[in-house]
Amino acid sequence: MSEDAIFRNIPQFTVLRFARYLNFLVNLPDVVEEISSSEMAGIIGIKPTQLRQDFFTLGGFGRQGKKYNVRFLIQRLGEVLALQQPQDMVLAGVGHLGQAIANYQGFERFNLVLKGIFDVNPKMVGLSIRDIPVRDLDEMGSYIQQHKIRIGVICTPHHAAQNVCDQMVEAGVRAIWNFSPENVTVPEDVVVQNENLSVGIMNLSYRLNRELP
Amino acid sequence: MSEDAIFRNIPQFTVLRFARYLNFLVNLPDVVEEISSSEMAGIIGIKPTQLRQDFFTLGGFGRQGKKYNVRFLIQRLGEVLALQQPQDMVLAGVGHLGQAIANYQGFERFNLVLKGIFDVNPKMVGLSIRDIPVRDLDEMGSYIQQHKIRIGVICTPHHAAQNVCDQMVEAGVRAIWNFSPENVTVPEDVVVQNENLSVGIMNLSYRLNRELP
Repeated sequence: MSEDAIFRNIPQFTVLRFARYLNFLVNLPDVVEEISSSEMAGIIGIKPTQLRQDFFTLGGFGRQGKKYNVRFLIQRLGEVLALQQPQDMVLAGVGHLGQAIANYQGFERFNLVLKGIFDVNPKMVGLSIRDIPVRDLDEMGSYIQQHKIRIGVICTPHHAAQNVCDQMVEAGVRAIWNFSPENVTVPEDVVVQNENLSVGIMNLSYRLNRELP
Repeated sequence: MSEDAIFRNIPQFTVLRFARYLNFLVNLPDVVEEISSSEMAGIIGIKPTQLRQDFFTLGGFGRQGKKYNVRFLIQRLGEVLALQQPQDMVLAGVGHLGQAIANYQGFERFNLVLKGIFDVNPKMVGLSIRDIPVRDLDEMGSYIQQHKIRIGVICTPHHAAQNVCDQMVEAGVRAIWNFSPENVTVPEDVVVQNENLSVGIMNLSYRLNRELP
């Protein structure tokens, strides 16, 4: 198999672990040039054997006791996760959650850049969040087309979510990150990730009640 | 194996699917009494075979073409996910994200009840969110002890997260739901779920660039 084909067949849980590794590494102080798998596993909270197996998947490295070059790992994980090129995003809905996400400064480290913010509320339109003006939702479609944006973040109330999603997809968005409580549906050539808060807390409840001794 | 033992050994991805099923079912209009596995799978966006296999895990049902009683499924999933008894939560940090979560009305449907809200900002202390007063963070420990609260939600800035986490655990919290960008660490007898926004968007980026044709 070619390297590209291997990158296409990574199970979702492994992708999530890779993302956690990259997030951890990118946030290390610049002075840290090397790290061992056991140190890293300990801080992230996963088994060292799991981490070494994942590193092996990344390209044949991952030996016990060895130290890894942080820059190399960051570059390698960025390649696998397809984060080398900048990717632009739009966000719709600037209630509390939308404002929290628009203000979040972690995404740029992964080349993910929020470009446009949209809302229907006239009180919000014209304001700026981190120097990005909030525009009227009516302008979203043409903005997406003009800037060839492929990632859309939905933070609207649930009743507006599917409509906003349809507008994003119609204009060219190919990945929907949905924070509204509504599960939105998309065509087959679009990916959607529904970040439902209730699902997260139910998972935590399960672990609290079923995993702890 | 006893039923309880089976409930203890469910892989995390299956738990997440169960939570998605329950969230979907609870949000159905009351008039919907029955649903087929294929209908449900279609709306949620997973394979019908996967859903039927999961229903089989839930207790030996899950046949093709059969309709399921919605109330029965809700009850069964609630049992598996340990949601039958009310569970109280506290939340620390009422910036935009904290306010979004405190305002979120979906948790009560799963018997998860936000009881106490805490912040260090004197401008926030004394205000109320959904009739819950915001209290000074100094009062959090005694509040947790007094009300025997086991779930803590962290929405503080990253520099405060570990300290708040330690205070929660010290007072008796056994499950931490962490929305700060900092990975917090906990003793072995506490579960922690770090909801890192960057990890979510990296997963979406992977799917956009590696899974779509």
